[in-house]
Amino acid sequence: MGKKIVIIGGVAAGPKAACHAKRLMPDAEITIVDQDSLISYGGCGIPYYVSGDVSDEDELRKTSFHMTRDEKFFLDAKGVMVRTRTRALAIDRGRKCVEVEDLAGGGKDSLPYDKLVIATGSQPFVLPIPGADLEGVYTISDLHKAIAIKKKLAQGEVGRAVVIGGGAIGLEMAEAFADLWGAETSVLEFMPQVLPRLIDAPFAAMLQHHMRQHGVNIHTGEGALRIEADANGKVCRVVTPKRTIDTDLVVMSAGVRPRTQLAKEAGLLVSPLGIVVNNRLQTSDPDIYAAGDCIETTNLITGKKFFAPMGSLANREGRVVGDNLAGIHSVFPGVVGSFIMKAFESCVGATGLSLEAARAEGFDADASLTAPSDRAHFFPSETKMPMQLVFDRKSRRVLGMQAFGAMSDALLARIDAAAALIGKGGTIDDFSLLEMAYAPPFATAIDALNAAANVADNMACGRQRNVTVKDFLDWMDSPESRPGWVALDVRHAKEVAPFTEKFGARWLGIPYNEVRRRQAEIPRDKTLIIICDAGTRSYEVQVFLDSTGSTDTLVLGGGFNIISRLGVDWWPKK
Amino acid sequence: MGKKIVIIGGVAAGPKAACHAKRLMPDAEITIVDQDSLISYGGCGIPYYVSGDVSDEDELRKTSFHMTRDEKFFLDAKGVMVRTRTRALAIDRGRKCVEVEDLAGGGKDSLPYDKLVIATGSQPFVLPIPGADLEGVYTISDLHKAIAIKKKLAQGEVGRAVVIGGGAIGLEMAEAFADLWGAETSVLEFMPQVLPRLIDAPFAAMLQHHMRQHGVNIHTGEGALRIEADANGKVCRVVTPKRTIDTDLVVMSAGVRPRTQLAKEAGLLVSPLGIVVNNRLQTSDPDIYAAGDCIETTNLITGKKFFAPMGSLANREGRVVGDNLAGIHSVFPGVVGSFIMKAFESCVGATGLSLEAARAEGFDADASLTAPSDRAHFFPSETKMPMQLVFDRKSRRVLGMQAFGAMSDALLARIDAAAALIGKGGTIDDFSLLEMAYAPPFATAIDALNAAANVADNMACGRQRNVTVKDFLDWMDSPESRPGWVALDVRHAKEVAPFTEKFGARWLGIPYNEVRRRQAEIPRDKTLIIICDAGTRSYEVQVFLDSTGSTDTLVLGGGFNIISRLGVDWWPKK
Repeated sequence: MGKKIVIIGGVAAGPKAACHAKRLMPDAEITIVDQDSLISYGGCGIPYYVSGDVSDEDELRKTSFHMTRDEKFFLDAKGVMVRTRTRALAIDRGRKCVEVEDLAGGGKDSLPYDKLVIATGSQPFVLPIPGADLEGVYTISDLHKAIAIKKKLAQGEVGRAVVIGGGAIGLEMAEAFADLWGAETSVLEFMPQVLPRLIDAPFAAMLQHHMRQHGVNIHTGEGALRIEADANGKVCRVVTPKRTIDTDLVVMSAGVRPRTQLAKEAGLLVSPLGIVVNNRLQTSDPDIYAAGDCIETTNLITGKKFFAPMGSLANREGRVVGDNLAGIHSVFPGVVGSFIMKAFESCVGATGLSLEAARAEGFDADASLTAPSDRAHFFPSETKMPMQLVFDRKSRRVLGMQAFGAMSDALLARIDAAAALIGKGGTIDDFSLLEMAYAPPFATAIDALNAAANVADNMACGRQRNVTVKDFLDWMDSPESRPGWVALDVRHAKEVAPFTEKFGARWLGIPYNEVRRRQAEIPRDKTLIIICDAGTRSYEVQVFLDSTGSTDTLVLGGGFNIISRLGVDWWPKK
Repeated sequence: MGKKIVIIGGVAAGPKAACHAKRLMPDAEITIVDQDSLISYGGCGIPYYVSGDVSDEDELRKTSFHMTRDEKFFLDAKGVMVRTRTRALAIDRGRKCVEVEDLAGGGKDSLPYDKLVIATGSQPFVLPIPGADLEGVYTISDLHKAIAIKKKLAQGEVGRAVVIGGGAIGLEMAEAFADLWGAETSVLEFMPQVLPRLIDAPFAAMLQHHMRQHGVNIHTGEGALRIEADANGKVCRVVTPKRTIDTDLVVMSAGVRPRTQLAKEAGLLVSPLGIVVNNRLQTSDPDIYAAGDCIETTNLITGKKFFAPMGSLANREGRVVGDNLAGIHSVFPGVVGSFIMKAFESCVGATGLSLEAARAEGFDADASLTAPSDRAHFFPSETKMPMQLVFDRKSRRVLGMQAFGAMSDALLARIDAAAALIGKGGTIDDFSLLEMAYAPPFATAIDALNAAANVADNMACGRQRNVTVKDFLDWMDSPESRPGWVALDVRHAKEVAPFTEKFGARWLGIPYNEVRRRQAEIPRDKTLIIICDAGTRSYEVQVFLDSTGSTDTLVLGGGFNIISRLGVDWWPKK
């Protein structure tokens, strides 16, 4: 008989490690224990199950060839033993065994191991507010809760829903409630924007506006103070410092924490970010590996440890653990941090660091905000894809990228390519030359990502100077705050007219191709905010004006293709 | 007054170099000369203009903000002088001037330069066959020819069309003729497959089958012997060794050659692959740069020189030339070779080397053929995306990737990410861990590209042994050729039944999850071809059988998801 391997946790990293190890060591005796009755499910699919895109919860547990991944499947097909409803109580590292309890029968047992894998995942963070434990308040932490939520929806019991937490899962759940089920849905996010730290303010604002247009009430900078119940003890409202929201259901998605108690109690090295592992995913006990949401990992950009709870990473880590269990030297170097998210007809994604995160990490960071086409502008399905490359001005290293666009895989393509290069330490120049595949139905000759890098190059070299979106919006709201500013709008005269009409002397229109000829009309005693649709014409005008000695100019990066997606109230009516 | 810069060629690399240089050196005096009257157009858009996706040829000449890129536009907006219908006759390097002829007026002129850029592009290769110069035989080499073709289509003069050459442009033109215009369209490709050298046989076969299903007659291994005319001298048929095809129009797209005559006559170093340049795109004369289709470039995988005529590269090269003209040290290191192409409801793409090309280059290459899902299998719009990673067995370096899938940007995402990593020397392990963004609407938790790398890992380590598609198809066509082979079909019993019924003793069905229990039924005196839908179950069965000592097995990589796309005639009727 081969090695005895015990794996604690049966959702993503655990089964992946188990099955890969079994294939590498067919004589190994591998046992997965999990306290749940349902294992090996696609947890990231829960919002799509709740929304109705996925009709049956069983679909989330099936292989692509339509077999349900239950205990029998693992035994028959994989040769891996699974003990569900079995809780790991303690790890006895001296005797090399795991004490487990059968939650159904109540019996206790001791499972000896040669190698142990901890894949205990994460647990939802439950806000310490009154009412958090009421009936009708759910976390999205396992399939049972998803089933309960969908049952309530299907029975017509959810006319209103509140989501506490504007992270990806919270927003996906909000879409699920609002879209198919038509529930009056509100999202509360304590931070000033949704997806805090993941994306920067302009991208969060575009996403928020889009979701609001689809009927989701998004309240940022506003946390839940308490959740209240009706006379029957069922949830009925959420109270914030600003309002009271009646609701039939509350989803609490305020983030997750690594589930590390077992590891801690066993004396393994554990940080607040998770179980400490080396790059082979070995814990401080060489016979014990850990993978998935319960570990801390390395950020490949900052070199620092961080917490990256994602199903895709858990699977990749599981394979690395499987290799190492079998004596194959396999390494998990760390994480760049990629994500993508559907939101109604749009999607948003990012990889690496946001500008805010990069500056907080001490980088001399800036960001090139652009609004390139996702495919040839003459191709019928073309749309704009606001995008931002975050870079370090000194080293020219690209630190991150984010984008917002129409729902398609166009944005995915740029995120994935950027993630690949950022993981390899790619610079602005690497991005400028990155060989994106081109044909008009798929891309532009200078791909969106190349174009974003070219703008970053112009900025890093000091050739392009931008106004921030925030400063521009502040000025539009309070012109008196910056009395020396004037807009130089270089779009077509027809496009500019409603703006000059509404904003008078603050708004000067000279079409891009007439600037050289009409430069005498351009005031030299004002700060010019140069505006077009995507920022490219504005940059060219800035460079030209520099050559004439008129250097007090700022480009609105990404132009009105960004601003028009923010839902500003000053936009001239047609 | 600043530097005098002359640029020969006004389509892609030339204008890009000109405009970028002008922005970097506002006082430079920059002149583009081009023998054509139409410049700066998106040549890759021609098939979409012919198909009707793009209604007006002017769209191909417009910026994304709807200005036509003509002489006036370049002068007014860019500050760049353009002389159209002006042919460069000779470069006098001693006097540093270009002799030009005004094709309209007939006058000659001499343009002095401090720096010169040659961006003369490529010229179509016209097969030396009788009738190649007949009326009605077109190359796709400029906008005028495209306009002429579309006019004929619009006037109803093209009921039948023949395309000579099964490269990307030829196939795109074939789709244009067949799709909107309903022309009876035939493609002749002299090589045994379309897109020769770019993709391997199984992918070419999937593409050919798809295009045939959409009514395009594709004849491979069949060249045109001659083109014949009717009594009026207009083209009326194409003759091959196998058939005569009546036609109203012939497109000759048999590849292009670098246009290097001017450079050669000026005594610059020129190879058969194009004008020789260093990595700053400087020719053998340091005052002369060259970019675009007319240069030879470096293949980043083989390190060898090659010819890569693509509009996207021309633009990237143009920017590098612009930098260097302005004294900014900027480098164009070379090319991986990415492409993507729409074909009706499908698309095909590749980056790096095909398996055939990699072996021809002397690599110890193999390829992992897979058929992964493009997004979560439980997500409604999921489809399979046959994919192949080409790798070197010794170094584990990934040399190339190709894929065929439904028309969307899903395939683009994997091509672009793969190109980014291949350009950085990525290994199988890099691909296995590549951080593809994941959410169910966009990807699988183990992304298609990660999965392809995992299979490559299994193959490189000798854990997975495949049968080639060719060998499998040969055996299906001539079972007697390999009497020792038996199919072990591990799909669901219901799926296998029609096959066991049709193929009798050659076809053994044991569902994947029953193999461990029923291993006694598996013959040990035969070579087992293990078959499933995607190859993953087959691999697991192979590994299990290895552990039982039954090692004479081969996996059908990618499984029936590949074979079912080939249009084989032996598929059992339902």
